[in-house]
Amino acid sequence: MAETVEVKRPKTTVTPDEPRKALDFSNLLGDAKRRTQTPIKSLYNLFFLPGMLNLSAGLPHPSTFAFRSLSASVPDGPSSPSSRPLTSMSIPFLPSADSDAINKTIALTHSLQYGTTRGIPAYQAFVRQHTQEIHAPPYADWDVIGTVGNTDALSKAIGLIGSPGDTMLVDEWTYPAAVDTAQSHDVRLGPVSMDEQGMLPDALDQVLTNWTSTYGPDRPVPKMIYLVPTGQNPTGATMPLERRRAIYAQAQKHNLIIFEDDPYYYLQYADYQSPETRDNDHPDAQPGLSGLLPSFLSLDVDGRVIRMDSFSKILAPGSRTGWITASKQFLPYIEFHNETTVQQPSGLSQALLTELLTNVWSHKGWSDYLKQLQFDYFRRRNLFVDLVHRYLDGLADYVVPEAGMFVWLRPRFPQALLAPYPDPAPSSKGQSEAEAAASPKPIMPQVLDAMVEARVMLIPGYFFAGQIDRTERVNAPYLRAAFSFTKPEEFEPALQRLAGVLRQFDCGIE
Amino acid sequence: MAETVEVKRPKTTVTPDEPRKALDFSNLLGDAKRRTQTPIKSLYNLFFLPGMLNLSAGLPHPSTFAFRSLSASVPDGPSSPSSRPLTSMSIPFLPSADSDAINKTIALTHSLQYGTTRGIPAYQAFVRQHTQEIHAPPYADWDVIGTVGNTDALSKAIGLIGSPGDTMLVDEWTYPAAVDTAQSHDVRLGPVSMDEQGMLPDALDQVLTNWTSTYGPDRPVPKMIYLVPTGQNPTGATMPLERRRAIYAQAQKHNLIIFEDDPYYYLQYADYQSPETRDNDHPDAQPGLSGLLPSFLSLDVDGRVIRMDSFSKILAPGSRTGWITASKQFLPYIEFHNETTVQQPSGLSQALLTELLTNVWSHKGWSDYLKQLQFDYFRRRNLFVDLVHRYLDGLADYVVPEAGMFVWLRPRFPQALLAPYPDPAPSSKGQSEAEAAASPKPIMPQVLDAMVEARVMLIPGYFFAGQIDRTERVNAPYLRAAFSFTKPEEFEPALQRLAGVLRQFDCGIE
Repeated sequence: MAETVEVKRPKTTVTPDEPRKALDFSNLLGDAKRRTQTPIKSLYNLFFLPGMLNLSAGLPHPSTFAFRSLSASVPDGPSSPSSRPLTSMSIPFLPSADSDAINKTIALTHSLQYGTTRGIPAYQAFVRQHTQEIHAPPYADWDVIGTVGNTDALSKAIGLIGSPGDTMLVDEWTYPAAVDTAQSHDVRLGPVSMDEQGMLPDALDQVLTNWTSTYGPDRPVPKMIYLVPTGQNPTGATMPLERRRAIYAQAQKHNLIIFEDDPYYYLQYADYQSPETRDNDHPDAQPGLSGLLPSFLSLDVDGRVIRMDSFSKILAPGSRTGWITASKQFLPYIEFHNETTVQQPSGLSQALLTELLTNVWSHKGWSDYLKQLQFDYFRRRNLFVDLVHRYLDGLADYVVPEAGMFVWLRPRFPQALLAPYPDPAPSSKGQSEAEAAASPKPIMPQVLDAMVEARVMLIPGYFFAGQIDRTERVNAPYLRAAFSFTKPEEFEPALQRLAGVLRQFDCGIE
Repeated sequence: MAETVEVKRPKTTVTPDEPRKALDFSNLLGDAKRRTQTPIKSLYNLFFLPGMLNLSAGLPHPSTFAFRSLSASVPDGPSSPSSRPLTSMSIPFLPSADSDAINKTIALTHSLQYGTTRGIPAYQAFVRQHTQEIHAPPYADWDVIGTVGNTDALSKAIGLIGSPGDTMLVDEWTYPAAVDTAQSHDVRLGPVSMDEQGMLPDALDQVLTNWTSTYGPDRPVPKMIYLVPTGQNPTGATMPLERRRAIYAQAQKHNLIIFEDDPYYYLQYADYQSPETRDNDHPDAQPGLSGLLPSFLSLDVDGRVIRMDSFSKILAPGSRTGWITASKQFLPYIEFHNETTVQQPSGLSQALLTELLTNVWSHKGWSDYLKQLQFDYFRRRNLFVDLVHRYLDGLADYVVPEAGMFVWLRPRFPQALLAPYPDPAPSSKGQSEAEAAASPKPIMPQVLDAMVEARVMLIPGYFFAGQIDRTERVNAPYLRAAFSFTKPEEFEPALQRLAGVLRQFDCGIE
């Protein structure tokens, strides 16, 4: 049985006003140990000594850069998406911008050059200040680093804490690329049961408390947990504050590093109300930047959260730009990992995003923009759920999402159809060949075939199983519906077709 | 002693006009085996069946994208860099562009969306055609995939062929990030001697032939070799065609996969002539796109080259955009690796680069642009080498580069100063403590201190040693000079200061 782990906090003088430093997690580092600062960087400070004539820099001169200015048209202030007024913004070249200006000015001279592997300084400064304003991490020594999106960020977090043979705990139903990313590091998955509010704290406690008795002494006790706390993919679950606190407490008890992957954080929206009494159908009822749920980072007194934010769902996936917020114990290894991989996000992307967020919109403009975006998702969610209610009531159970893009449906198949793949987690490995031959064909691939036949497409739940061998969950009775991309006028015929498919399988017949 | 390895070519019907398929290298795959296609992708074709109503796509709708159009000013045609006329180019949004248009049109609707992890189709199409025109790989089943630059590409190549404990062969002096990248994969380095034309084929043969007798049977014989064939960093060496052929023959003999990292390929320029008789001082004397040396890829009848190209040195490092060309046996694993990391290069970068190269410049315009760029580097190289000749003749040996950014200097230190760190590759591990204490302080850190004191900065050679423990080469008498970034008017005072430093160490005194 795993013991509760005690972690020593580094000795530090604490004043009442000053948050404490992060706990010392150096004993949890995994493959991070492979990553060190490239020795040549030890020389960088010398390059900038007064009067230095520098024949060191293996960089192209900015006069050779092909892009001499950049401009974009962007939405200016809140309005309906179809009639948003546009404004234009530009990034100048500033060939004579000196190294002092780099911290204040967004100029192609700097943002198109090789640079720090943490992101261009103006981008770092913006996301650092934004993170302070939104999350106010309750420990002293945190910072940010630019990423090319949350999947790469997760790969780097796993490459920091994980080693081959380790296990990453995940929701029972989770983002498929998280499973694939763990696998690419030779890291195994440990699925934990969940309900409509996300992962169950007691289930997490049980998995860890019984780890060694379940898996034997040779399988290392997990030290990392992957969570998508807001509008989770695929279940749409958003963890309320109390659930977040309870999961964080388990992470403290079992000394876990939390990978908080939160791409849908800004896609929180107002409550679902039934159409007859709906009175929140306007942008001002949306949370904007000020009404968002507290993140795990905002609860993180220990410095055990590696939070991953992304502009993919807010500004555009193609920007390939996000950031990690974490303890300064961890960030150097992420930076070294950037040095041997991506270097930093595209300077074109960083320059455009930073100019937009700092100089065109600023905090207030961004909040207004988000309210409009949240309102778009709010209306899609409302329409979709209204229609799910109309066409699927009695055929399937579902939970109304408060954030993100997904509704997780649980069709009411007759119990007989689900055998011999009971939910949760079955395994057919114990079956004899004769038993297997006698078993009915698993239900969900049949449902998939019937959906294709009826020309309506949802993703069967087993594609999201939080384990390498997803086929073990092939009979789990779930379907993921996404309402973010499809034309709203297609919602109704799609759900009518789905209802027809579910009736073919006798759903809802007691 | 390692045997020459025989490799079977897959059976295929060959017609005289048709190049053969690549050899089967599946037995050389390393960590690639950790990477598989995410199962959900098996459904993608179903999404596009006629009449399908799709509730599968977990994508933001393009109407939520913040960038509604993008434009840039770019050089229009060849001219002197200071007076290049600019032209403007734009990327439209095209909200109604359908999926047919995606292959022909560059539109933000598509390039800002999630997409294929190979790059946007128009970008892939451009680099595929360009690769055919420039390199004409002499086997049938090659293709391209977008990357975020050559360092990430190298990391993915190592993650394809390498496994922990493997060895990557490298030049004795090599790009430091290649060493760090190998280390981050727990892959060791095998340095091979070189001369002014790059790696020595006989040395490569000897290292491999004697591998097992040198390192014992437990250290796997290397299956990958890393080369920067053009304007190599740090030595500036460009391998002539005969050297490339000889190295390729060794790769065939010993069944090596070649990682061809060629960021300086387009920075080839006309010969150095002494100032008195110089008659090639104009852009038309530069190679453009048509006069470039054949690459390893262009010699690759077997499909054993993984070539990495980058726009960093041509258009701008901040674009973070390049591409890999390799056999279709290898590319799926790179694509799976992209799926769990970067996804693809920034869509903003890809859209801007593709529009510039295909619609603004096209092949001819790009070639003209390159001639101008090559001429910029040509003039810098000429001025720098003229001054090296004036100030360092007798103090240091050097080779005049034909491509890239670097001059590799070998100061003529008195032999006594170099002991006890003879060149090549020494090791102090055999020394007793008493011997070590009696040894003089290694020379190159002293030279570094003296350069800092004199306010001139070049990088000592040991920072480029092709091995994890670079301090073993701390007394190797080399300095790397970069002439790409420094203001040309600083070349002369910098080299005067360097000459003063070298005289302090009695360089050139027989």
